Amino acid sequence: MTTSLDSLIALFAKLPGLGPRSARRLVLHLIRNKEKLLNPLVNTLLQTSETIRTCHVCGNLDIVDPCNICSDTRRDHSQICVVEEIADLWAIERSKMFRGFYHVLGGVLSALDGRGPEQLNIESLVTRASAPEVAEVILATNATVEGQTTAYYISDRLVDCNVKISRLAHGIPMGGELDYLDDGTLGAALKARVNY
Amino acid sequence: MTTSLDSLIALFAKLPGLGPRSARRLVLHLIRNKEKLLNPLVNTLLQTSETIRTCHVCGNLDIVDPCNICSDTRRDHSQICVVEEIADLWAIERSKMFRGFYHVLGGVLSALDGRGPEQLNIESLVTRASAPEVAEVILATNATVEGQTTAYYISDRLVDCNVKISRLAHGIPMGGELDYLDDGTLGAALKARVNY
Repeated sequence: MTTSLDSLIALFAKLPGLGPRSARRLVLHLIRNKEKLLNPLVNTLLQTSETIRTCHVCGNLDIVDPCNICSDTRRDHSQICVVEEIADLWAIERSKMFRGFYHVLGGVLSALDGRGPEQLNIESLVTRASAPEVAEVILATNATVEGQTTAYYISDRLVDCNVKISRLAHGIPMGGELDYLDDGTLGAALKARVNY
Repeated sequence: MTTSLDSLIALFAKLPGLGPRSARRLVLHLIRNKEKLLNPLVNTLLQTSETIRTCHVCGNLDIVDPCNICSDTRRDHSQICVVEEIADLWAIERSKMFRGFYHVLGGVLSALDGRGPEQLNIESLVTRASAPEVAEVILATNATVEGQTTAYYISDRLVDCNVKISRLAHGIPMGGELDYLDDGTLGAALKARVNY
């Protein structure tokens, strides 16, 4: 094996979800499909690397700043949905159920990782939420201990902003079977039961 | 999400072992670590794409042709190890137990996929095995039906080459527990038992 192959495999092995074995498989596949895969991948990577920037309003990634979502005038200016990461923003966009704006925190509060409020985009959220057109802030952090702690901290910071603060519903996922659900989810679903 | 990000994710999702979800995660990770990951990856991919070629002797990938293994004079010229894919060659090299030369078939015989002997590098193997210095051909194809069929076909083709033909031993893998082994492996290990 040569050094350039070795270092390519080492680089791929560093990516999330890949290890040395899957990186080797991937690199071999790329080299075997040079025209159809390797060259397009290099070109798209180069192009993305040069054009992608972070939106200074919400923290999303786009080729324009402010991003396409923030500059979309058809969206509902009264709602801001707060998410931990850009991937969460994408997930909510895929659901096509939300027409407001987003705010990407860039992580969660974590004593273990030494991440305090000043490392997250919380100050800019308070500023945005203070604008008169904003009526509701939806806290869509993950249903983990850190996510919920962060949501609680943010709700505390937004107290003086004169906005409604809401969070995502907890309950049984679509297609979920009761027998396979954890007790926490089942308890939350029972507690939050609605009239039929 | 922008088109260049979309197409980058679509390209990564085509790679073996990755799907749309892991591709999204990977692309986000790359963009967040532009200096440390994305740019080195692009450079190494470019460099590899330009320099890597297939060795015309054994079928290995290298920046030189013949490859470093084929041109290594300290290796044992009497042995040729036949493997299905380059990944198998690398695996045997990592074991550091073989000091002969390799021959990459580029696949296995498969009626289902319509792959016959002419699609594999078998002719060149017969030519190489006919050389006077070659004493043994080790058939290191996978222990699958196709791998074993291919090995059988090759052994038949090498009959007139005046070489010893061997195959890898079947048996219990190192650290393997009898209770978890399939019956085929256990039977093969029992049949191939050796004196203690």
